[in-house]
Amino acid sequence: MNSNPKKAVILLSGGIDSATTLAIAVRDGFEACTMSFSYGQRHSCELEAAQWIADSFHIKKRVLVTIDLRLFGGSALTSDLEVPKNRSAGEIAHGIPITYVPARNTIFLSYALGWAEVIGSHDIFIGVNSVDYSGYPDCRPEFINAFQNMANLATKEGVEGHKIAIHTPLINLSKAQIIKTGSGLGVDYASTLSCYDPSPEGFSCGECDSCQIRSKGFKEAGVEDPTRYKF
Amino acid sequence: MNSNPKKAVILLSGGIDSATTLAIAVRDGFEACTMSFSYGQRHSCELEAAQWIADSFHIKKRVLVTIDLRLFGGSALTSDLEVPKNRSAGEIAHGIPITYVPARNTIFLSYALGWAEVIGSHDIFIGVNSVDYSGYPDCRPEFINAFQNMANLATKEGVEGHKIAIHTPLINLSKAQIIKTGSGLGVDYASTLSCYDPSPEGFSCGECDSCQIRSKGFKEAGVEDPTRYKF
Repeated sequence: MNSNPKKAVILLSGGIDSATTLAIAVRDGFEACTMSFSYGQRHSCELEAAQWIADSFHIKKRVLVTIDLRLFGGSALTSDLEVPKNRSAGEIAHGIPITYVPARNTIFLSYALGWAEVIGSHDIFIGVNSVDYSGYPDCRPEFINAFQNMANLATKEGVEGHKIAIHTPLINLSKAQIIKTGSGLGVDYASTLSCYDPSPEGFSCGECDSCQIRSKGFKEAGVEDPTRYKF
Repeated sequence: MNSNPKKAVILLSGGIDSATTLAIAVRDGFEACTMSFSYGQRHSCELEAAQWIADSFHIKKRVLVTIDLRLFGGSALTSDLEVPKNRSAGEIAHGIPITYVPARNTIFLSYALGWAEVIGSHDIFIGVNSVDYSGYPDCRPEFINAFQNMANLATKEGVEGHKIAIHTPLINLSKAQIIKTGSGLGVDYASTLSCYDPSPEGFSCGECDSCQIRSKGFKEAGVEDPTRYKF
């Protein structure tokens, strides 16, 4: 057993993807250090979910970054724009929706990069995937590759020859495959929250794109959906 | 005269370089929109300088982003580590100093990217230069190129084919050339602050790397140094 595991920074939002990503990093022997963001999101109760998940994996090093992306808005998640509901699978699969938050993953990964450098980590995990996703440009492999390339030029660590890796273990998995993988690694999906527009009590709407993708994923995985819906 | 100029986001710290960069963007016909950061920096009075400079160029659209990079520290600018004083030119020219803030320019440019997307701008200006600088990895042209490449993959604007440009008009200028350029464009350098460790009243120490690079720049430019030093 490795008594001195390599540290990795895991972006943990509190949803299915980031929870599964954390489980994979732990399985792969990293000392997982989680970073979550309070960014003015409509669904800020996902942060409680992030805490529960971090607790369940006994994460010692965790950080909550408070930033205010409402400052510039431009998304249904960070402004008063309405979250679209009951869109068809075809509508969800097509185009970049209004829930896209400009530069969000770029900003999150930039913070992760800074923290990684300070704690001496060269590994960052992010749960993006390009199969069952919402059409966000910053979830695509070409974006991740470009970020990794930039990261290795941006930092002292990179200049000194420590290769910084952005890990995306879910990038080619369907939502069903993600759920199966996480279930096998002990992720308690009842703790996770995916909904973009939950009730104040933390119940999921069941109608936004994220709820629909989640629900379909559980069905296809043949795993019981533990989500607390408001209906 | 162009009655509907293109918007550009200008990162404005309040120092010589960003003030000159702003002047250049204005000269080049952009509607300059300034973005400044309160990030827990030791020398936060630079933010007053940023306001004075923005006032002097009649900037209408400006944003102050409050983030806390003290959260992870790792730099003399965002922790209790001491700011080095009275280093020789050789020492300043060599290596990455303790005033380097991990991923700072990456984080700043990421925010600029998000704001640019929301206000419909495809142009971001940053006053990095790779001649008279402090050895920061995120001031080098190869970093900027990699960031621009990533930015064009990160955003809706990029995906839709609007090329996002990161402008670095100072990249190949010496500090003296920067000062001469800005003087010709009406920059009031008395308003700018470069010092990493100013007194509470806003007087510059005259001894940190940034003060030394600044002072040498004014001498070489043959321009009177309007800095308020504390001695």
